[in-house]
Amino acid sequence: MGQAPIGYLLFAEEMNYNPEDSKWANRDRFVLSSGHGCMLQYSLLHLAGYKSVSIDDIKQFRQWGSKTPGHPENFETDGIEVTTGPLGMGISNAVGLAAAEAHLAAVYNKPGMPLIDHYCYTIAGDGCMQEGITHESASLAGHLGLGKLIAFYDDNGITIDGHTDLSFTEDVGMRFEAYGWQVLTVLDGNTDVAGLRDAIKQAKACTDKPTLIKVKTIIGYGSPNKADTHDIHGAALGKDEAAATRGQLGWKHGEFEVPQQAYDVFRGHAAKGASKQAEWNKMWAEYQQKEPELAAQFKRACMDRKLPDGWADSLPKLTPEDKGKATRLHSQDCINALASVLPEFMGGSADLAPSNMTLMKCTGNFLKGSYAERNFRFGIREFGMAAMCNAMSLDKTGIIPYCATFTIFSDYMRSAIRMAALSQAGTIFVTTHDSIAVGEDGPTHQPIETIPSLRMIPDLTVMRPADGNETAGAYKYAVERSKNESRPTFMAFSRQALPNLPNSSIENTFKGAYAVIECADPEVILIGTGSEVHVCVNAAKEGLAGKKVRVVSMPSWEVFRAQPASYKDALLPKNVPTLSVEAAVTMGWGEWAGAFVGIDCFGASAPGQTCLDNFGFTSANVASCAIRCIAGERGALSNGSQGKH
Amino acid sequence: MGQAPIGYLLFAEEMNYNPEDSKWANRDRFVLSSGHGCMLQYSLLHLAGYKSVSIDDIKQFRQWGSKTPGHPENFETDGIEVTTGPLGMGISNAVGLAAAEAHLAAVYNKPGMPLIDHYCYTIAGDGCMQEGITHESASLAGHLGLGKLIAFYDDNGITIDGHTDLSFTEDVGMRFEAYGWQVLTVLDGNTDVAGLRDAIKQAKACTDKPTLIKVKTIIGYGSPNKADTHDIHGAALGKDEAAATRGQLGWKHGEFEVPQQAYDVFRGHAAKGASKQAEWNKMWAEYQQKEPELAAQFKRACMDRKLPDGWADSLPKLTPEDKGKATRLHSQDCINALASVLPEFMGGSADLAPSNMTLMKCTGNFLKGSYAERNFRFGIREFGMAAMCNAMSLDKTGIIPYCATFTIFSDYMRSAIRMAALSQAGTIFVTTHDSIAVGEDGPTHQPIETIPSLRMIPDLTVMRPADGNETAGAYKYAVERSKNESRPTFMAFSRQALPNLPNSSIENTFKGAYAVIECADPEVILIGTGSEVHVCVNAAKEGLAGKKVRVVSMPSWEVFRAQPASYKDALLPKNVPTLSVEAAVTMGWGEWAGAFVGIDCFGASAPGQTCLDNFGFTSANVASCAIRCIAGERGALSNGSQGKH
Repeated sequence: MGQAPIGYLLFAEEMNYNPEDSKWANRDRFVLSSGHGCMLQYSLLHLAGYKSVSIDDIKQFRQWGSKTPGHPENFETDGIEVTTGPLGMGISNAVGLAAAEAHLAAVYNKPGMPLIDHYCYTIAGDGCMQEGITHESASLAGHLGLGKLIAFYDDNGITIDGHTDLSFTEDVGMRFEAYGWQVLTVLDGNTDVAGLRDAIKQAKACTDKPTLIKVKTIIGYGSPNKADTHDIHGAALGKDEAAATRGQLGWKHGEFEVPQQAYDVFRGHAAKGASKQAEWNKMWAEYQQKEPELAAQFKRACMDRKLPDGWADSLPKLTPEDKGKATRLHSQDCINALASVLPEFMGGSADLAPSNMTLMKCTGNFLKGSYAERNFRFGIREFGMAAMCNAMSLDKTGIIPYCATFTIFSDYMRSAIRMAALSQAGTIFVTTHDSIAVGEDGPTHQPIETIPSLRMIPDLTVMRPADGNETAGAYKYAVERSKNESRPTFMAFSRQALPNLPNSSIENTFKGAYAVIECADPEVILIGTGSEVHVCVNAAKEGLAGKKVRVVSMPSWEVFRAQPASYKDALLPKNVPTLSVEAAVTMGWGEWAGAFVGIDCFGASAPGQTCLDNFGFTSANVASCAIRCIAGERGALSNGSQGKH
Repeated sequence: MGQAPIGYLLFAEEMNYNPEDSKWANRDRFVLSSGHGCMLQYSLLHLAGYKSVSIDDIKQFRQWGSKTPGHPENFETDGIEVTTGPLGMGISNAVGLAAAEAHLAAVYNKPGMPLIDHYCYTIAGDGCMQEGITHESASLAGHLGLGKLIAFYDDNGITIDGHTDLSFTEDVGMRFEAYGWQVLTVLDGNTDVAGLRDAIKQAKACTDKPTLIKVKTIIGYGSPNKADTHDIHGAALGKDEAAATRGQLGWKHGEFEVPQQAYDVFRGHAAKGASKQAEWNKMWAEYQQKEPELAAQFKRACMDRKLPDGWADSLPKLTPEDKGKATRLHSQDCINALASVLPEFMGGSADLAPSNMTLMKCTGNFLKGSYAERNFRFGIREFGMAAMCNAMSLDKTGIIPYCATFTIFSDYMRSAIRMAALSQAGTIFVTTHDSIAVGEDGPTHQPIETIPSLRMIPDLTVMRPADGNETAGAYKYAVERSKNESRPTFMAFSRQALPNLPNSSIENTFKGAYAVIECADPEVILIGTGSEVHVCVNAAKEGLAGKKVRVVSMPSWEVFRAQPASYKDALLPKNVPTLSVEAAVTMGWGEWAGAFVGIDCFGASAPGQTCLDNFGFTSANVASCAIRCIAGERGALSNGSQGKH
């Protein structure tokens, strides 16, 4: 209710949008970062004429199967750009949307033909301002000078606990000035519509900085007894107070009764948006004439959102004779191969580019003045980075975003990884240094539970490639999944060199698991992932010589799970003793194996190979555990505890 | 190398510490937030005379079993207060240490007897300043006016990617002023020791604000070829450059050769610290005379760090006849019971106190001017909150810290939860709204993988109580684990009401799992956790009437895992078909059961009971799955997918 005037201004006066085509590339974007106030957004979409939100949908607010869930969900309700609710994520998404706009404008706009030229608006509350993620993304937005980002800070002074005096007395405006934003203030956001209008004008006039419009509002404005209290934060007004509020606001209409005049205002403005899209279509026709090459690229990459023919041919192919190297280096090869053939492939690292090996050589840095370039320098801002990348995918202009950090620091952005999966964002998470083989940096930097715990996130695919071909397979999978399905993939690469394996290939990677050493009638099956597959191969060749051993590489649980039962049963027959080998916790491996080699404790600071040796990831230990497995032992046969000093 | 003058000043001039008693309650605290520079800290500890770091230890830098791992680890190296490495965590820990100081000083200090009166120093780098967690904790530190917190910002302009111009151009000083900090600048941190000294003096003079001392340094200062480059960020100088650096700095000594004069300076200062402790001991003797009651409390709670006799008697006990309620409400009862008998029990919520039910009624808000109170108002700052609480435990003054948020938002602080487990901090994580029964807020707020994924973190105990007695048991366990073992516990409570179960008790909770419905020779065993246990009980009574059914409540996997094999085998015999029932992903349940009822997809926005019904958490569905389990079916018999609309 406090944000209603802002919502009115945006949807009835300022924003260019067309409810008939919610994916029009040049639409203005809107993100309600304070997602718990989603009824505002549903009301605006309804008033504006989006078919996704009927008055019946509004009546079904937060009910099973409704299009009006308790927080805005882009995958449920057409017209919503991103899913919000987890605080700070939305405004960080908005930074990503603004970055996407800046990039596409720099690449595609030509004199007189501004193909991409729109604003990104967001409304954020006190919660968003307190969350660390907002610091990360706002600092980066200021650094990048994203002038078309306009954020309203709904400064109502109330959070769930009570008045912000309890916990939040910083000078938010000063902070954003320190980030390099323009900061404006509207003192009465509840009634001063002209002041809000003027602030938006000033925001648009400032083209080299994002703008924060600090709007003093009263939460629950109009409610005679509950306005300006935290009672109204997450709770409904109640029947009596709703009636009293109608009285105070002079609103003569009943529940769910919308006067035609209100529809007329919003739909009149929406019609202007449709006209603008019609004009844009004309310009687009002209653009196709004058800039046929760029137009073809824009049509394929951004409008049709299709991958070009033969794109995957660029990915490297290796044989066991090729010298082994770290999968993070194979990842670098893949990134650079893709960068050349996919202009929509862009991203970067949270200040670990030289470690993550994520720099694209064919393009420069995406910075103020060089928005056409594609290497993002996210800074040490994992969470903000991931939320930005999610939004670059959800921008629906075909961008394939990737972001990188050490595997362990996926914990810093875990909520954004989850949101990628939930909100169907095609973010590619590139992580390196994926096990205790990190070595010297020690247990703070050594993933143990990290990769297995990510496998638990619904609709996320986790890939841990074992060599060059699996890395190429992982990228092919991740890019297709991003572009064609708008779904995320999480990849984990090794710091250390690994040999190229027999039988590995892009095709086999797409099966999720396959035999690297085949054996018709095995006594035991060893399943490895990533850097442990070659240890299993060595165990099969050395300590298990004479035994009938199948070695399976399983780069992805999720992909394997989706294979036909016949393939799964043939590869991992239920009656054959099976041992998993992964430098991670053993929990969960019972789905595929009866016995496990893993590490159920924290690692240690020492050279990587020393860690692997001492925690049991040697071919000798794997062979010995395999023999125990053949003999009928089950459970965690080796879990790292013997290595603890 | 750039931070050496700061290190010298702190350890040779400013700080009060005693290497002979590293746990002296009134020592000054030091946190190296930029933990990758840990050799500085090891050198300082060695020079100061801590026995934990010999010159041989320094030679063993980052080697297996050494006391000098790649990042500072409090659990490896005496004299280190907190484990750092994950950026931003250390400075946030420092805020927690300063909060602990402020609280203890307010509670215990008496005129002329300042029992607790020390500073907390930290050195943070660009990475810390970019991370969102630092925003959260620094904003709160400013709000709280923690005047004894002195943070050095090592402004060397270099990160791993290169110069900070690439990604980080905000005005950090201005930002901290916006937080309410005093901000000072030393322009030449490499040689202007007097300037640094003066800045510390000014910092100490400002008693109502934390101070940030921005120190311009040159990374790798003294290295003729690598100073001021990112090549030196994470890599060793190399032999030649080390020699050249010695030359440039005029250092005539060999590798690992420390001139006696250097030892004399540091150890002379350390001796002064020992004298100060001796003086403190005299004051303490006087204090015990004059303030016997408070002294006894200080001795028990802070010095001996023991729980008082009979403290656990305060916890509620319930019977199945007691009206059921949400476990978050039982949690509130426990928190308030503990608050009355444990003055060292303190904490709060990240702005969800009225939802998490975490407010202690017997004490007020910990705010500027009321530091003696114990309710923290952390604001919407989960990650900063958790890091602060970790530090309050690692302060080693006996504080039992708790922090709260929705279960789902543990993702925001996951790295700090991991660090609690790794660094042996006794933080109690209180989370509520632990399943899809959250209801209307929808999938962004409904934990699916959250609880199972936390069970993967080594050395963390996860508790999901089913009723009032299990909640009391969880608190008894968590408090003992915090106080006696300095280890963390994560708790997840329901939003919705749950009945009190037969056979539940504190004692049974301490077994991790136990029968709520016993059956001598069961045909099937149902294992539930939390809100699903009573569903299992109902299934046993209704749909499975006539079958021999044991129902097991398993509040904690970790606790159960630690029981004797005989107990575990008797409760869950391998040959009895066993079905797990938990409103969470099924991955991992294979450790205890052969068949599962769970939810392997995201939830939906609808009333909580509707979600539970539609996703299969009904006694009818559980009974039907149990019958399939008896018939030999295995795997996820119900995983929520049938509920998706």
